[in-house]
Order: sequence, then structure tokens, then C-alpha cells
Amino acid sequence: MKKTSTVICHHEYGVPEEVAQVEAWDTPTIGPNQVLVEMKASPINPADINRLEGKYPIRSPLPAIAGNEGVGVIAQAGSEVSNLRVGQPVISLDRVGHWCDAYAADAKNLIPLPDDVPLEQAAMLSVNPPTAWRMLEEFVDLKPGDWVIQNAANSGVGRAVIQIARLRGLRTVNIVRRKELIPELEAEGADVVVTDEISLSKQIRDLMDSGDAPLGLNAVGGESAREIAKSLSDHGTLVTYGAMGLQPLQMSNSLLIFKDLCFRGFWINAWYKRANVTEIHEMFDQLIPLMTSGKLAVPIEKTYPLTDAKNALVHACQSSRTGKVLFVMN
Amino acid sequence: MKKTSTVICHHEYGVPEEVAQVEAWDTPTIGPNQVLVEMKASPINPADINRLEGKYPIRSPLPAIAGNEGVGVIAQAGSEVSNLRVGQPVISLDRVGHWCDAYAADAKNLIPLPDDVPLEQAAMLSVNPPTAWRMLEEFVDLKPGDWVIQNAANSGVGRAVIQIARLRGLRTVNIVRRKELIPELEAEGADVVVTDEISLSKQIRDLMDSGDAPLGLNAVGGESAREIAKSLSDHGTLVTYGAMGLQPLQMSNSLLIFKDLCFRGFWINAWYKRANVTEIHEMFDQLIPLMTSGKLAVPIEKTYPLTDAKNALVHACQSSRTGKVLFVMN
Repeated sequence: MKKTSTVICHHEYGVPEEVAQVEAWDTPTIGPNQVLVEMKASPINPADINRLEGKYPIRSPLPAIAGNEGVGVIAQAGSEVSNLRVGQPVISLDRVGHWCDAYAADAKNLIPLPDDVPLEQAAMLSVNPPTAWRMLEEFVDLKPGDWVIQNAANSGVGRAVIQIARLRGLRTVNIVRRKELIPELEAEGADVVVTDEISLSKQIRDLMDSGDAPLGLNAVGGESAREIAKSLSDHGTLVTYGAMGLQPLQMSNSLLIFKDLCFRGFWINAWYKRANVTEIHEMFDQLIPLMTSGKLAVPIEKTYPLTDAKNALVHACQSSRTGKVLFVMN
Repeated sequence: MKKTSTVICHHEYGVPEEVAQVEAWDTPTIGPNQVLVEMKASPINPADINRLEGKYPIRSPLPAIAGNEGVGVIAQAGSEVSNLRVGQPVISLDRVGHWCDAYAADAKNLIPLPDDVPLEQAAMLSVNPPTAWRMLEEFVDLKPGDWVIQNAANSGVGRAVIQIARLRGLRTVNIVRRKELIPELEAEGADVVVTDEISLSKQIRDLMDSGDAPLGLNAVGGESAREIAKSLSDHGTLVTYGAMGLQPLQMSNSLLIFKDLCFRGFWINAWYKRANVTEIHEMFDQLIPLMTSGKLAVPIEKTYPLTDAKNALVHACQSSRTGKVLFVMN
């Protein structure tokens, strides 16, 4: 490894492309239980943008290297490390510090991947697919044929929900803002795709000809979340995991009192904190084969080198994007 | 019993005092498993107003006798009835038909009360105290010293929450709209009483010097509900059981995602429907002694005869009330 490593870091909070700095930092040295990971790819997630803005509920001591997930290969392993070998692809359970050429990780915080894993997809394996997976597991005992209703259906989480739900025999109603996305999501396994129009809940109820809709997933807020709530079955649960619309949740009291809905929230970082190692590995044992076989695939719009951080961040903040923006390294 | 009974009924939905009619109906005859109950007292509850307006989620076939709860004494018992005797005070599990001189009830739907029960208080035993009781039981495993934060604290449910919470070693933060209510609720056992002002959640957090606040109870909606949510501990539950403020619930997404709050609803009618007989009797075995000993008391502002239905309803709809409006019969 070179003595210095390129990193995207920030010394203050503010407009992402203004505060993000490309710098050369010393390549870290590793302890006996650590490995040096040579980074290969890392996406720009909404959480990364919020972190740079200082709007994320966790703040790292500054200066900090940004990037909440990514994939790399082992470049060097400490003397006590036995379960990982040089050249092996890995993702990490750390939720910060991935936008760099190389980083030092505790071996116990890494999930090994098969050699043939598609690296750019694997870079997006530790946040969105686990969010989708856990939300389909944690809140409602879903039965084959049940409907799951979600907005932001073309997001990373949304696509993972479609694909995992399909494999589990569930059906999905998917709300999107742009008509062009309908054939694409249908091709990925969506049962019903609707656009965000007036009388959305009436539309949805007409389309769900039979079966229960016990689970809704909300990453938008406002009217979109309310239309999902109105479409759910009695006693259903609406889980909020994002707030892309920046609108608060606004719900009539009768949805709670008479329809007996339950409103919950989900944050994958909190789950990683409370889950034990076995649970985490069991989940990835299911997700990794799905990814390797191409069943968890997210469209990639453009890749950038780390040195082009500012353009990459401007691009990632464009609302007209149809795929992910990634950094690729080495 | 007389051959006819005075009833307050309605033939249509609309403005309560306009659609409510005082009529003479035939006194019902009873079957072998029924009893004739001579009514003694019955309150005007918010649910009664909503029913007359047609805004309640349940509609009875019209014409219907109004009144969702009340107390009476057994006037006559069918040949197969063994557990009830003439002269015994009873309340009923039926949630309609109490604004009358006399009604026929299935013996199995009645809860017998001790002879010395205060009748006007007992008339209000089957809706509000059970709502308070169940909400303190059902959602959160509350420990002595825990805080429960509620709005509409001077309502029937609110006062029952204060009194039951006190007996269970819980502490209550009580939000009211009028300063005059503070000494009154403190005398009933409220730990903290605050008025509905700016920075309410900051006020509340300062007053709860120690301990968790895992449960909030909301009968108002809007800003008041949001201030409770902001005051709860992480992972807390906010239960909505009323909507006096007619404002929808409006919550920032971060309260769900990062604070992991849970929003639920409670409706006592749905509980009566799903509960089994043993659960219902076990609850009343606890509530009846509390009421008999004066620990579940609600201020009564004025009583009216059934024949004065219109004035009573106008009075019950006044927002400046400080106590309940009741019908008294016989």
C-alpha cells in the first residue's frame, strides 16, 4: 500500500459539496486483530448527505471521513486474524469512514463476501437491503399473499422490498412519482405500481382485489404516508424509515382509534446496535446469495473517483436521478 | 312498572339538540334470561354527541334510543335469571340505549354493583374508568415511579388516569387548558399539572426530574399530542383515544425513526368486543371498590330529567363546562 490514502473528509457541517474535502491522509497501520481494507466502491446515500449537513442524529468528531457503507478487499491482515484472507471482498458493520482508498477495520466488524460478488452492488449491501429485510421481518407476521404498500418504491430500500417480498410470496403496491418508472419496477417484480395522484388510497384499494394489507412502508411523509395508512387493513402497521418529502406525518385520529393502526419507525443503525452477531450473520447469509445471483440489484447512474467528490455530491443531490451515484476506488 | 317508558331517541342524524326527541315508548317485556332495568342515571358522553351527529363509526338502525352508558336497578328478573335480584344496582355492557326509564337487558350483559354504590358516579363507570384502566395496562409495562403524560387531564378519562396511576405508584404529568384546574387535579392526586403553553415539552422535561416517561395518552391531537410525544422517553408509546381538538396527529418523522416512538390508538368498544367475560369481570372487580370508596369520582356540573333532553344536550356541548352533565331518572 502507498503511504498516503485519498479520503473525502469534512472539517465542518454545511452544504455537502462545499464542506466535503479531498485530502491525502496517512494510510492507517493495523493492530493484530485488524485488517487493512483497500476500498473498491462506496455509494452516496441520503444518510451521507444528512451527515455532511449536520442533520443526522449522530455526529462524529471532526475532521471525519464520510461514507456510511462500501465494499473493499483485504490488503493486509493482522497476526491474530484467522477468518479473513488477503484479496477477500468484505463489507463492514461500521457506519462511517468508507470514502477513502484504504481503512483499518477490526476483523470482527467485517462480513466476508464470495469472490464473485458484483462489487458495485455489494457496496450497497449493508444499509438498504438490511433495512428492507428487517422491516419485512420485524413488525408484522406476514403471510404469503399479503400486501405490502410502500412509497419511494424506486429507492434503494424500495427496490430491495420489491425483490425480497416477491421471493417471500408477498405482494407489493408501489407508489412512485414518475410514470416512467412503472415498467422498470414491474420488471423487478412489483405487483402493482401507482403514481402519486389524487384519491391514491381509493386507487390502491381497487387494485388490491383480495387479501390483507397489514404493512405499509413510508420514506416520504405527508400526504403520501396518509394515503398508505388509509389503504392498510384494520390493525395494520405503518413503518416510517425515511423523510424524503420533508413533510411531517399527518394522520387523522380515527385511523388510530377506530382503525387501530400502529405507527412505528425503523432505523437500521439502531438495529445493528441492538442485534447480536448471530442475527447479523444470519441475515447476511440470506442476503448475500440474493445479491450474488443478481436478485438484489440497484440501477447505477454514474460512478466517480474520490478526487471528483464535489461533482459526485452535486449529482447525488439531484431529484431527477434514476439510479445511484457511487465512488469507485483503486 | 308503567306500560310506557320515557326515552330520548333520534330518527335521523344531525345537530344533537335538534334530532334528539323525547318520546313515550312501550316498556319492553323480558324473556326468561333477561331482566328489566329501571334506569337511575346516565351521563352525556362525547361519544353520545358523535352518535347523534352520525359521526360515530357505529350507526344503530333508526329510530334508536341514545345513551352509551348508565346505571339502573333491577325491576324485574326473568325466570332463568339466578345471579341478579330485584333492587340490585347494575351497569350494562351494551353501549347504546341508556337514555330511558326502563330497558330490557340480557342478564349476562350486566355487571352487578354493591347496594351502597354512589349511583351518579356508577352511571359513569363503564366507559371512562375502563378506558383509563386498559390504557395503563395494555401498551407499556409500567413500573412504579414511571411517568405517564396526558392531555385533557380534567376529562372523565383524564381524572380516572390520575387516580388509578396514583394507586399504582405511577406519576402523572397532566396538561390542561385552564389554570383554575391545577389545584383541583393536584388534590385528586396529579403529580404535575401544566397548562397548554409554548415550549410545553421543555416545561415538562424540566418538571420530570427523574424517571422514565414511557407512556403518553392523547385525547386532543395537533400540537398538544406532538408536545407529549417530544416529552416521552426513547421507545415510548403515545396512545390516542380521543380527538377533542379536532386536529390530526402531526408528528415529525424523526420521532419515529430516531426516537423509536410508537403511536397507537385505543377504543373501549373494540376492547369490550375482543375481551372475554373473565377479563371484563376481573377489571370491574378492581374498579368497583375504587368507585365505592370515592377514589374514582368525577365532578358533576348539572343533572337533568329525560324530558329536558334539549337543554341538557346544549349544556353538554359547552366547552366551558367543568363537570359532567347527567340525566337522572325515576
